Amino acid sequence: MEIQQRFAEARSWLIDLQRNICTALNAIDQQEQFVADAWERNADYSGITCTIKNGRVFEKGGVNFSCISGKSLPHVALAHKTYLKNHSGTLPFSVCGLSLVLHPLNPYVPTVHMNIRFFIAFPENHAPVWWFGGGYDLTPCYGFVADCQHWHQTIKTVCDGLSADAYHRYKTWCDQYFHLPHRKEQRGIGGFFFDELHNSSFEQCFAFFKATGESFLTAYLPIVRKRMTRTYGARQRAFQAMRRGRYVEFNLLYDRGTKFGIESGGRAESILVSMPPQAHWHYQWIPEPESEEARLTTYFLQPRDWLALSSISA
Amino acid sequence: MEIQQRFAEARSWLIDLQRNICTALNAIDQQEQFVADAWERNADYSGITCTIKNGRVFEKGGVNFSCISGKSLPHVALAHKTYLKNHSGTLPFSVCGLSLVLHPLNPYVPTVHMNIRFFIAFPENHAPVWWFGGGYDLTPCYGFVADCQHWHQTIKTVCDGLSADAYHRYKTWCDQYFHLPHRKEQRGIGGFFFDELHNSSFEQCFAFFKATGESFLTAYLPIVRKRMTRTYGARQRAFQAMRRGRYVEFNLLYDRGTKFGIESGGRAESILVSMPPQAHWHYQWIPEPESEEARLTTYFLQPRDWLALSSISA
Repeated sequence: MEIQQRFAEARSWLIDLQRNICTALNAIDQQEQFVADAWERNADYSGITCTIKNGRVFEKGGVNFSCISGKSLPHVALAHKTYLKNHSGTLPFSVCGLSLVLHPLNPYVPTVHMNIRFFIAFPENHAPVWWFGGGYDLTPCYGFVADCQHWHQTIKTVCDGLSADAYHRYKTWCDQYFHLPHRKEQRGIGGFFFDELHNSSFEQCFAFFKATGESFLTAYLPIVRKRMTRTYGARQRAFQAMRRGRYVEFNLLYDRGTKFGIESGGRAESILVSMPPQAHWHYQWIPEPESEEARLTTYFLQPRDWLALSSISA
Repeated sequence: MEIQQRFAEARSWLIDLQRNICTALNAIDQQEQFVADAWERNADYSGITCTIKNGRVFEKGGVNFSCISGKSLPHVALAHKTYLKNHSGTLPFSVCGLSLVLHPLNPYVPTVHMNIRFFIAFPENHAPVWWFGGGYDLTPCYGFVADCQHWHQTIKTVCDGLSADAYHRYKTWCDQYFHLPHRKEQRGIGGFFFDELHNSSFEQCFAFFKATGESFLTAYLPIVRKRMTRTYGARQRAFQAMRRGRYVEFNLLYDRGTKFGIESGGRAESILVSMPPQAHWHYQWIPEPESEEARLTTYFLQPRDWLALSSISA
């Protein structure tokens, strides 16, 4: 199959997935709906940014499809690409991807992020090189072991379809990636993260790619339904706003997707649709010892083998 | 004079300046006071972080003195240091500096930032190299030409004491530095920014350094006094929270001081004391045409020769 045909196939599948995800989230929210904003800067730079705000369940969220071609692949996208590292000069590329961040209103419902993308690079005097990357991860303010287990079990099931060691590798990669060194803490309870997936056939890789995207709602929605009616008050909202500050720190200081977007001259409003509706910063805020808030950092924001824990229902 | 003695002199002067600034700000706020938090990680890494919160005038603010020695000067501090660029290997260094960010409660009072620092690098087989850097800049939510003129006139007076072209050079440097390329806008109405000041005698450079630090209150306080009693409402607070989002974006995406702190393994709470108390993000928020809010970006957040404008009182 021609590489351009593969790109068109991935592109069209991503747009379908975007629609399916928004439809499912709308059905849960009931109060507000995602609004689609299709934009096109030029033939090489277009997207569909779907956003929701002030919902019953989702205070702010974005599900962003984008499709970019460029003359020079930004350095940040090359970080792990050993097979392209020796290429000298600029590297023309095309990428299409879906990026999603949801900031729920209820502090007991975790923030979620997914990013999946299909890249093609066009080295001079060489056949095009393609690869898939992606993953999703969960960022609770208040942790529940049962939710972590459901989340990771869903991911493990998908990863087992690729290979016996995929879950372990991609879960570890995710833990390493979503880490705030200046805070010495994880961003959340992890998930999975893969990149430069190109070592088997296109069909096999694409099948895994689709399976990851399609599993997102299976992983996230049961957690939303379980926690969205839990009573909360000013204390939980204040803690959530503070934790959202950490989310902002990760996204702007470290996130490769954000850096890629900014460095490739991307559309700021679409890249930064991941920002929370609001974030608070306090100097030296410390949670009450033994509180739920303290337990978030001491227990949940530590890399952990969630599936090895004995099951706890909560 | 021995280089270590110079360092001690700069250090002690910075601590005095910190105290004087906090005293003056306390006198304006009346309701809350700066609280000093002296910290010492080890002999090579210490500071005094003074913070205020929920004041009558200052919603959140930090005046942060720090003194760091390290085995390897972080790359970000070398950006313009042509005289050190050819040095191979790691470069031991010492730095002491004062960094200040104030987020006023009233949206008509501008946010302000100052950072001044004294560096010494110790290249192997070479005499120590010292330099001064610093500057301050103003970030209003609502612009007033008279305030911009007072601000820049104060800076020009200080810069004229160094050389006839210093104001123009340092003002331009500031405009270039405090720019958000992804937003295509300036962070604020500028000020001045200098670095690697070491080309005349230590005494001359130190005198200019002191003059800049001592002029800060002269530049800022009249603006605070003029605007702090102006009536505002929910609309102005909402706009302020959104503008604070831009401040966060600059600090985490671009600011060299923040990057230097993070890369040198700095104390996160002191580095991020610059964060606003809260920040909001909305997708595609656009101000009403011709409104005060629209005028901020169309008129004030453009590099401009404020002193060439005919004086307007407001």
